Amino acid sequence: MTVTNIAQRAYDHNFRLDPIVRSLLDTDFYKLLMLQMIEHTHPDVQATFSLINRSTSVRLADIIDEDELRAQLDYARSVRFTKKELIWLAGNSFYGKTQMFSPDFIGWLANFQLPPYHLHKVDGQYELTFEGPWTHTMMWEIPALAIVNELRARAAMQGRGKFALDILYARAKAKLWDKVERLRQLPDLVLSDFGTRRRHGFLWQRWCVEALKEGLGNRFIGTSNVLLAMDADLEAIGTNAHELPMVAAALATSDEELAHAPYRVLEEWQQHYNGNLLIALPDAFGTTAFLKRAPAWLAGWTGFRPDSAPPIPGGEQIIRWWQEQGVDPREKLLIFSDGMDIDTIEETYRHFHGRVRMSFGWGTNLTNDFRGCDPDGAPDLEPISLVCKVTSANGRPAVKLSDNPAKATGRPEEIARYLRVFGDHDRVAAELSV
Amino acid sequence: MTVTNIAQRAYDHNFRLDPIVRSLLDTDFYKLLMLQMIEHTHPDVQATFSLINRSTSVRLADIIDEDELRAQLDYARSVRFTKKELIWLAGNSFYGKTQMFSPDFIGWLANFQLPPYHLHKVDGQYELTFEGPWTHTMMWEIPALAIVNELRARAAMQGRGKFALDILYARAKAKLWDKVERLRQLPDLVLSDFGTRRRHGFLWQRWCVEALKEGLGNRFIGTSNVLLAMDADLEAIGTNAHELPMVAAALATSDEELAHAPYRVLEEWQQHYNGNLLIALPDAFGTTAFLKRAPAWLAGWTGFRPDSAPPIPGGEQIIRWWQEQGVDPREKLLIFSDGMDIDTIEETYRHFHGRVRMSFGWGTNLTNDFRGCDPDGAPDLEPISLVCKVTSANGRPAVKLSDNPAKATGRPEEIARYLRVFGDHDRVAAELSV
Repeated sequence: MTVTNIAQRAYDHNFRLDPIVRSLLDTDFYKLLMLQMIEHTHPDVQATFSLINRSTSVRLADIIDEDELRAQLDYARSVRFTKKELIWLAGNSFYGKTQMFSPDFIGWLANFQLPPYHLHKVDGQYELTFEGPWTHTMMWEIPALAIVNELRARAAMQGRGKFALDILYARAKAKLWDKVERLRQLPDLVLSDFGTRRRHGFLWQRWCVEALKEGLGNRFIGTSNVLLAMDADLEAIGTNAHELPMVAAALATSDEELAHAPYRVLEEWQQHYNGNLLIALPDAFGTTAFLKRAPAWLAGWTGFRPDSAPPIPGGEQIIRWWQEQGVDPREKLLIFSDGMDIDTIEETYRHFHGRVRMSFGWGTNLTNDFRGCDPDGAPDLEPISLVCKVTSANGRPAVKLSDNPAKATGRPEEIARYLRVFGDHDRVAAELSV
Repeated sequence: MTVTNIAQRAYDHNFRLDPIVRSLLDTDFYKLLMLQMIEHTHPDVQATFSLINRSTSVRLADIIDEDELRAQLDYARSVRFTKKELIWLAGNSFYGKTQMFSPDFIGWLANFQLPPYHLHKVDGQYELTFEGPWTHTMMWEIPALAIVNELRARAAMQGRGKFALDILYARAKAKLWDKVERLRQLPDLVLSDFGTRRRHGFLWQRWCVEALKEGLGNRFIGTSNVLLAMDADLEAIGTNAHELPMVAAALATSDEELAHAPYRVLEEWQQHYNGNLLIALPDAFGTTAFLKRAPAWLAGWTGFRPDSAPPIPGGEQIIRWWQEQGVDPREKLLIFSDGMDIDTIEETYRHFHGRVRMSFGWGTNLTNDFRGCDPDGAPDLEPISLVCKVTSANGRPAVKLSDNPAKATGRPEEIARYLRVFGDHDRVAAELSV
């Protein structure tokens, strides 16, 4: 007897939409942590977020059908936090701390909905922007990226036969497991999944996370994806991101306020979280500039997440700064999360092992590495450098300089002004693969 | 809504036996061709077939549960040719010829059932023998091997978690596809699946066959597995095997008759199939001996299947013989089928390309290559050298010398007598991996 689930098949025939974002927890943990602070401290700031495809040769508007994109974005707007999700956020402990989210904030989330979007095609690309209160537009970042990336992957696979897909995923699984076996050789490895935004697809990210859990044991400390953390009983990982200093900088009314903005926002963070979650991003306007004027109290923080300098010189620079401040780097933490893959993880681990605590946030090359896996050899499964950044706050333009000029965002005249204020020390252009 | 096939799950809970051999067509095509001749020409010969595990270090009786083995063998005995199968055998054309099987023979098959078996444990191995009419015992060869090999693989995988199995098959698929991509580089390749007997499992063999069909196009000419040939609309491949000369030799009443037996049986074959299917196995009692006394009419046959000599010297020896007979090897066919894998296929193809027609019968290394695929690294998925051979005919011992003494079967004193009659020229021991 052939066993067929007839109901399933009948449903498949009538299938309309396979939603990509089915839960508001399908986002990065740092968004919720930042959101709580923003909702508490800056509820009235208006912020615009924009999708930016830095891989301009990939003409997304020619690849992804506009109706499909709208259907996915509309579906995401229809999603609400469920009771189970809010109970979990309230009841779970994060980084060992209970009640990370206040009852007030949980109550606020219960009414949360993703705000409207603006979508236009311009010269083969999508202009996708989100305007409104910062507390709402900032929550689009991860779902918007996940939706566009997964729609692109689906489009790439549309013509493939059953067999080609079978081989594709078999190879991708084998490839990831080979990396897992190499990572197992690093006894003190601490690694987490940071791959939500540029994942091949939700189901594939889930498989990758389960693979790391199975293969790395306690070397794998968790995932930035809150939904996967909840479902797989993993730690939710993340603290804060560039949007905090970028908005603070945009709102600065003088060059002096601008220069001070990156530190003021960290002070706010420290107060808001009572001395927990003390990880700083040094690179929004260049790490060298940041460290030069950094206040001494920052040496008391847990560590830094260098996110655009090459990992080894970037880490060395921060270690030197700690030493200048008279603290022992072996008690400090560096989180490497910029385009890491197996080779750079191994290299960075071996370079710093024993000299500093390390943690790796493994993103695109974890959840979207299909290079060499496609039996048809088409390039359209290569990951692209797609970001969703704050572009203005209260109508004032936002800027990111980054340690890598290829990652800078903002209008040219504003970038010039920021460079005047922060300097252009040690910023080195490097090709962006992801 | 979670879609669960509740009936399937309920069935799985009560699951008793997952039968390995579910069709009498799940066998090698040459068995049916030989059977038709035997049923017509030697219906009264009694022949004993015995399972022989040449990988003696693998203690099969310690690995495979006896009750499970009996349940599988009993299930295979309960299987009959279905109407659909008989209609297909009667109506399909094989090697371009219609009505390869006579209506009489099809009628005879309708009542066919696998005969009883004898099973004992001896010193960590199973003694599994089949006694009775040759027309019945010979049909156990492939099912018995497939059952024992698959039960061994199932035992090896019993402790594995879901994830380890997922990686195992992903790697095995990726590994096979890498081979497929190499084989695609050989423009005139002619290849078929000969992997039924030592397959990892039926479903895996089916996947491998579908992979070759998908990946090699018309370079893949078919499969020896009759059921897969029927289901996947492929050519059924095969002609005859060692049991024909072995039984003929066993029944010989003098050394002279013995020396002549290998040729007499080929004459019979030629007559029975009206000059079709003219492929000869030269190695039952040594290729050198066979060619030395081979009659001139054999040079008119389509070709040879060297099955135990190393492919390049073995092929060269046959090419020399053709040249001595004044025939052009470029019009002749060599079928290589002894333990071939990607490296030896490439090497043999390149060596003989343009000098002779070639075809490859790819067996164990196609359908049971999990080397390096097991994330737990256990050796129990390595294929073993398991055969099921005719050991006596009408009570007289049967012998195979082979070109590789490691493949010889039979009692020592009988082997000595055969070596006296056929000589021991050019037989070279080589390690048996499969």
